[in-house]
Amino acid sequence: MSAPSALDQLVDALRVLPGVGPKSAQRMAFHLLQRDQQGAASLAESIQHALTTLKHCSRCNTFTEHDICNLCLDSNRDPSVLCVVEMPADLLMVEQAMCFSGMYFVLMGRLSPLDGIGPREINFERLLQRVADGAVREVILSTNYTVEGEATAHYIAELLKSRGLKVSRIARGLPVGGELEHVDPGTLAQALLERKAL
Amino acid sequence: MSAPSALDQLVDALRVLPGVGPKSAQRMAFHLLQRDQQGAASLAESIQHALTTLKHCSRCNTFTEHDICNLCLDSNRDPSVLCVVEMPADLLMVEQAMCFSGMYFVLMGRLSPLDGIGPREINFERLLQRVADGAVREVILSTNYTVEGEATAHYIAELLKSRGLKVSRIARGLPVGGELEHVDPGTLAQALLERKAL
Repeated sequence: MSAPSALDQLVDALRVLPGVGPKSAQRMAFHLLQRDQQGAASLAESIQHALTTLKHCSRCNTFTEHDICNLCLDSNRDPSVLCVVEMPADLLMVEQAMCFSGMYFVLMGRLSPLDGIGPREINFERLLQRVADGAVREVILSTNYTVEGEATAHYIAELLKSRGLKVSRIARGLPVGGELEHVDPGTLAQALLERKAL
Repeated sequence: MSAPSALDQLVDALRVLPGVGPKSAQRMAFHLLQRDQQGAASLAESIQHALTTLKHCSRCNTFTEHDICNLCLDSNRDPSVLCVVEMPADLLMVEQAMCFSGMYFVLMGRLSPLDGIGPREINFERLLQRVADGAVREVILSTNYTVEGEATAHYIAELLKSRGLKVSRIARGLPVGGELEHVDPGTLAQALLERKAL
C-alpha cells in the first residue's frame, strides 16, 4: 500500500464519526483533499473551537458557550414547567415541535446498567438541585420510550414525587399523520392500551 | 432555537463531508462532543496535518508527504508499464487488486467539457513528460468507464500513440457506468489482465 501516512491518519481519524466505515472514510478524505480544502480547514477549526468553547449550562446542562444558556436566560419562558430529556439533540427536537415554552433539563445520558451507567454516572443530584428552585411545579419526563429511557423516567419519577412535584410522562402513541398499516405492533398495542376517552 | 453558535458552526462545517446532510451533521456533532472528544481533537489535527503536509508526487502526481512517493521510489516495481488513473482513490483500488507491479500516473481529474474541464485543466503535459523517461514501454489507460473517463482515455491514446508507445485500455470487465472506487478487487484484477491493445 502506497498511501502516505498523513492520508492514512486522516482516513483513520474520520472513522470516529458515527456510521463512517473504512470505505466512506477514504471517500471523505479524498473529497476534502481534492475538492474542498477550504471546507476541510474550516471543519478542523470548528471542531477545535467547539471543543474549547462549549461547556454545560449550569442550569439545564445542555451545551453552551456561556455559564447559563440563552434558553435558560429567556424571561419569556415559563419557569414552572421543566422538560427532562436525555440529550441536547432531544432538546432541539422538542424546540422544533414549537409547542413547549417551559424550561429544560438535559440528563446527558440514561440509566443503562448493562453499560455500567447507574444513578451515580447520570448525576441526578444536579436535577434535584434544579427542581428545588421554588419555581418548578411540574416535571415532564421526555426520555426516550426505550427500555433505558423508561427505566430512567421511572427512577426520576420516584425521586421527585416525594418532593411534592407534579410529574408527567410525554405521551406514547401513533405518530401524527401515521397510518395503522405502517406502525410497528408494539406502538399500536401501547396506543390502544393508553386510549383516551373522548 | 437555543443552540450555541460554536455548535451551529460545527454542524455546518460537518456538511462539507460527502453524503452528510443537516440531520447526520447534527448527530455527528453531538457524538463528537458527548462521546469522543479525544477522537474529535485528533480528527481536527489530522485534517490540518493532511492539508499542510500532503502535496503531489513529482513523478506520479498522487498525494504524498515527500517530493517523490514511496511507490515511485520502489525499485521492485516494473518501470516499463505505466497505469494512468483519474484519482488517488483509483490508484489505491488497483493496488488492492494486487495484480499490477508497474508504475502509476494520477491525472487528478478527467476531461469533462460540460464542467469546463478541458485538456488544459488536466495538464497532460506532465503525463507526456512522465512517459518520456525512456523506461516506459506501455501505458495502461485505467480511467473510469464513464463517458468522461472514456473521452479522457481516447484523448490520451491519441497523444501517446504518435510517440511510439504501446497503449492499452483496462478491460471492459468493469460494469458499464461503474467507477473504479466501487468495484470489487477480483473484477478489477480480471479487467487489468484482459486489457486490450488500442
